[in-house]
Amino acid sequence: MLKQYIKAAKREVKADLVLKNATYLDVFCGKLRKGDIAIVGEKIVGTGEYAGVEEIDCSSLTVLPGYIDGHVHIESSQLSPEGFASLIVPRGTTTIIADPHEITNVCGIAGCAYIAKSSKNVPLDVKIQLPSCVPATPFETSGAILAGKDIEENIGKDYIFGLGEFMNYPGVVNCDSDVLKKLEAAHSSGKIIDGHAPSLSGYELNAYLCGGISTDHECVTGEEIEEKISKGMYVHIRHGSSTRNLENAKFMTDENYRRFILCTDDRHAADLKQKGHIDDALKNLVKMGVDPIRAVICATLNAAECYNLKFRGGIAPFWLADLVAVSDMKNFEAKYVFKSGKLVAKDGKPLFDTTTRHLPESVLNTVKLKEIGAKDFTLTLKGNRAKAITIEPGGIVTGCEIVEVESRDGDVVLKGTDLLKLAVVERHKMTGNIGKALLKGYGFKGGALGITIAHDSHNIILLGDDNASLAKAANTLKEIGGGMVVVNSKSGETHSLTLDIGGLMSSRDAESLQRDSRTLIDLAHKMGVKRDYEAFMSLAFLSLAVIPKLKLLDTGLFDVEKFGFTDIDA
Amino acid sequence: MLKQYIKAAKREVKADLVLKNATYLDVFCGKLRKGDIAIVGEKIVGTGEYAGVEEIDCSSLTVLPGYIDGHVHIESSQLSPEGFASLIVPRGTTTIIADPHEITNVCGIAGCAYIAKSSKNVPLDVKIQLPSCVPATPFETSGAILAGKDIEENIGKDYIFGLGEFMNYPGVVNCDSDVLKKLEAAHSSGKIIDGHAPSLSGYELNAYLCGGISTDHECVTGEEIEEKISKGMYVHIRHGSSTRNLENAKFMTDENYRRFILCTDDRHAADLKQKGHIDDALKNLVKMGVDPIRAVICATLNAAECYNLKFRGGIAPFWLADLVAVSDMKNFEAKYVFKSGKLVAKDGKPLFDTTTRHLPESVLNTVKLKEIGAKDFTLTLKGNRAKAITIEPGGIVTGCEIVEVESRDGDVVLKGTDLLKLAVVERHKMTGNIGKALLKGYGFKGGALGITIAHDSHNIILLGDDNASLAKAANTLKEIGGGMVVVNSKSGETHSLTLDIGGLMSSRDAESLQRDSRTLIDLAHKMGVKRDYEAFMSLAFLSLAVIPKLKLLDTGLFDVEKFGFTDIDA
Repeated sequence: MLKQYIKAAKREVKADLVLKNATYLDVFCGKLRKGDIAIVGEKIVGTGEYAGVEEIDCSSLTVLPGYIDGHVHIESSQLSPEGFASLIVPRGTTTIIADPHEITNVCGIAGCAYIAKSSKNVPLDVKIQLPSCVPATPFETSGAILAGKDIEENIGKDYIFGLGEFMNYPGVVNCDSDVLKKLEAAHSSGKIIDGHAPSLSGYELNAYLCGGISTDHECVTGEEIEEKISKGMYVHIRHGSSTRNLENAKFMTDENYRRFILCTDDRHAADLKQKGHIDDALKNLVKMGVDPIRAVICATLNAAECYNLKFRGGIAPFWLADLVAVSDMKNFEAKYVFKSGKLVAKDGKPLFDTTTRHLPESVLNTVKLKEIGAKDFTLTLKGNRAKAITIEPGGIVTGCEIVEVESRDGDVVLKGTDLLKLAVVERHKMTGNIGKALLKGYGFKGGALGITIAHDSHNIILLGDDNASLAKAANTLKEIGGGMVVVNSKSGETHSLTLDIGGLMSSRDAESLQRDSRTLIDLAHKMGVKRDYEAFMSLAFLSLAVIPKLKLLDTGLFDVEKFGFTDIDA
Repeated sequence: MLKQYIKAAKREVKADLVLKNATYLDVFCGKLRKGDIAIVGEKIVGTGEYAGVEEIDCSSLTVLPGYIDGHVHIESSQLSPEGFASLIVPRGTTTIIADPHEITNVCGIAGCAYIAKSSKNVPLDVKIQLPSCVPATPFETSGAILAGKDIEENIGKDYIFGLGEFMNYPGVVNCDSDVLKKLEAAHSSGKIIDGHAPSLSGYELNAYLCGGISTDHECVTGEEIEEKISKGMYVHIRHGSSTRNLENAKFMTDENYRRFILCTDDRHAADLKQKGHIDDALKNLVKMGVDPIRAVICATLNAAECYNLKFRGGIAPFWLADLVAVSDMKNFEAKYVFKSGKLVAKDGKPLFDTTTRHLPESVLNTVKLKEIGAKDFTLTLKGNRAKAITIEPGGIVTGCEIVEVESRDGDVVLKGTDLLKLAVVERHKMTGNIGKALLKGYGFKGGALGITIAHDSHNIILLGDDNASLAKAANTLKEIGGGMVVVNSKSGETHSLTLDIGGLMSSRDAESLQRDSRTLIDLAHKMGVKRDYEAFMSLAFLSLAVIPKLKLLDTGLFDVEKFGFTDIDA
């Protein structure tokens, strides 16, 4: 190809495509420049005055390098990679560093391979970070375990880009031998390791970094950012659905701004659809007063440099023709998006096939249960005082409240209380494990809710006020192969939505999925779930044993602060 | 090793070495900070307060990352890699990107292998760029030819870091198929390609860059720098012996300064010894008014990023412990130099073995000649008007002057003129080629001078006013295996100095070599060489057929502007 590039660059032949009369961003000098951008194959071959076989007028547009999302879990969109791309590519994102942590917890390495292969169907570069901490804790039953030897076996594979966020920072700091094996394997294969070290500082941060970890997306204070950057880390500014740290941009200086990257981490399809992706982060950063050129540099060149993506993230000869032509650097409305030199989206609409074409057996039918009956949800207490989980505002941190409860026939009586039964039903290995607990203050009445998304092991999490509805919910989730369910004991009706891919994501298109999802959520709220909570997604974090305080695993009630199991009897 | 790093980082065990109470440069935030720097093995493990098995007080010093020379030909020092390291490591340079273009012209790939292996003897990281343009032109006889297939065969080797400066820019722009083969080979192996494109701009520069070329060290104007940086190149600021472009630093801005790198390209041992290396560049940059912190960032982090040297060029946990403790950021006097965590120089003196230990047959005895006689230097003209070479001030660019000359017995008469005979004697392939020409205005009288350094093919270049002395000089150079020679026809004395390594470099120590070299140079000046010229090194560029205007090759007189041979008769 070099010959074609060179001949077109010197105007001996026409370029394949020319963006005419553009204002374009020179990320290297931090300047806007004027000219045509000539493209041959997947490369930019020159800027200046060019003629092309195809020409697109960009005289009223500003052309930027395609955006790079430095850290994202596709699964949080509940969409397949194809569906995810259908929402983000038209927004101008052309590369993502994806950590398929969720699907890997369910399906193991096959989950990574699935994301990698599906991504080939869409004009989006998906760089796969091998999840480093599967499962998140050793206390629960997950679909897969990636031990040190598994990381050693897989990290060198071509489709694996690096090692995903190393959440187990105590393991690093305490020199856990299997943890070190994972890190050493990544270094041996020359691959980058993403970090995740909320609030870590001083000597503990030094120790963590001695694992050879390059990035962090958990910073919340200026002091933390300054320290992490000064110790060589790239810091991601996050624009997720729940966790948003755009205000971190105020700590950018003339000297350190090249060490900031943008990412979304976890972002729901509804936000992607209605607000946007990295484009929305840029818009908000500029609104906050961040220099628009620097904001874009964070989302392009900085990320490319951090992740060693050579010849990407800039507009220059031989650089990858990943480009987005926007209205202006205030609203960042994407008029045209080009991936590897091809026009792939226009006016916010994808110009590519967005249907889910790759759907291997390995990620389907992942809800493995024996038939479950009402009696499986009997909750027998020793006395009449029990620990109940409460959910703090925000939906992720929980509390523990001691409640007085009555029992009848060896089962707690919920009627007349604001307590609900919470159950985590193991769904990967047919262990028959069911963890049971009490949840206070959620508001729901008259049946059960259930979902197969329950971070990070993604067992079934159920909520309800009668055992038969709970059993019905579990069995429905098994039947449909994973997803969300609402059982109404009064009407006898059951409504569900299938998340066929690992019980986490849907192979359907983004629009119809969101519509049906909305319907179920509304139904749950109608049955009393307080508007403070996201009916299903608030449940999805009740199993996450790395966030305080009281959580429920398939193996029992878990006290995160003591980092061990605890008895329900108070 | 990770375990040892981590344990020391969190102060569970002592570090191997601690630089106590240092002021150190945080290149990421562009700030000076205070603290101890803890080192284990080859890595920095932390900054803060540390205790070490060994501790060095740095309370009055500023600790910087070790300097990186982004582009250098070791051969220009006339020293072996060991000798070269003896001069630059004590100055604070710990990594060089070395292009062994000269020795490769003489010895082929064996020259690269020699530099790579010798470098292992010294505490200096020498990253070998495979010379891309051997020979520099197809018109002359060199010791080796590296064709596209040779680059394909060697570029992937572990000890080869990238592809050296691509000087043949017309070949790139004109899509020469062998040139493209070299570039494609470098891309296939994922290796970086250095550039060399003096004055190239606009569409020709676009075309050149479409070869996938990353750097340039030939910029001389602000406009050129701005264009090259805006098109994605890193620009080297050069501080060689002859070519010095430190003034280019005035084109650094807040936005583009991360795209500048420092290099020396060609720097003589005398300059290295007396003035310094990258430290001298820094000193001069600061004297010019460049922010010292930014100057150091150019010499460290920027170079590391350009050349993809991860975890190098900064002071942070897990980063390579290549450090230099300097007096201040004005004089940059290196008190201590640490390479990979070991103290390797103190007070400007190396603490390592600087003797040349690796001296393979493949780089020795490279002067291959049949016995040469006086009559071989007969220069027969058709008439009495001839083209003579003149040397412009600066010593590299030459001119052409038409001179009137007498002939006797079929040979030009030099007596009573300011003309000298210039001869280039092929010394690699025993072709018997001798190129002959006239040189005007050099001033030398009464014998001959000769040297086996003659860019870039390094045949023997001779200068003299009688044929017997010229023959004597050639035969002496053969005898000693390459080097420099002065023949005095009046005294009958011959003085010489051996450059045993490829006829380019000496296996002797820097000091004694320089002393003897100085003696020969003084001798040449005593015999009349004008002080405008560097007696021998000015000769060494008279064969360089890529620099205007009239040059002499072993194959004949060459007009660089017409890029072809020319007749001596005017």
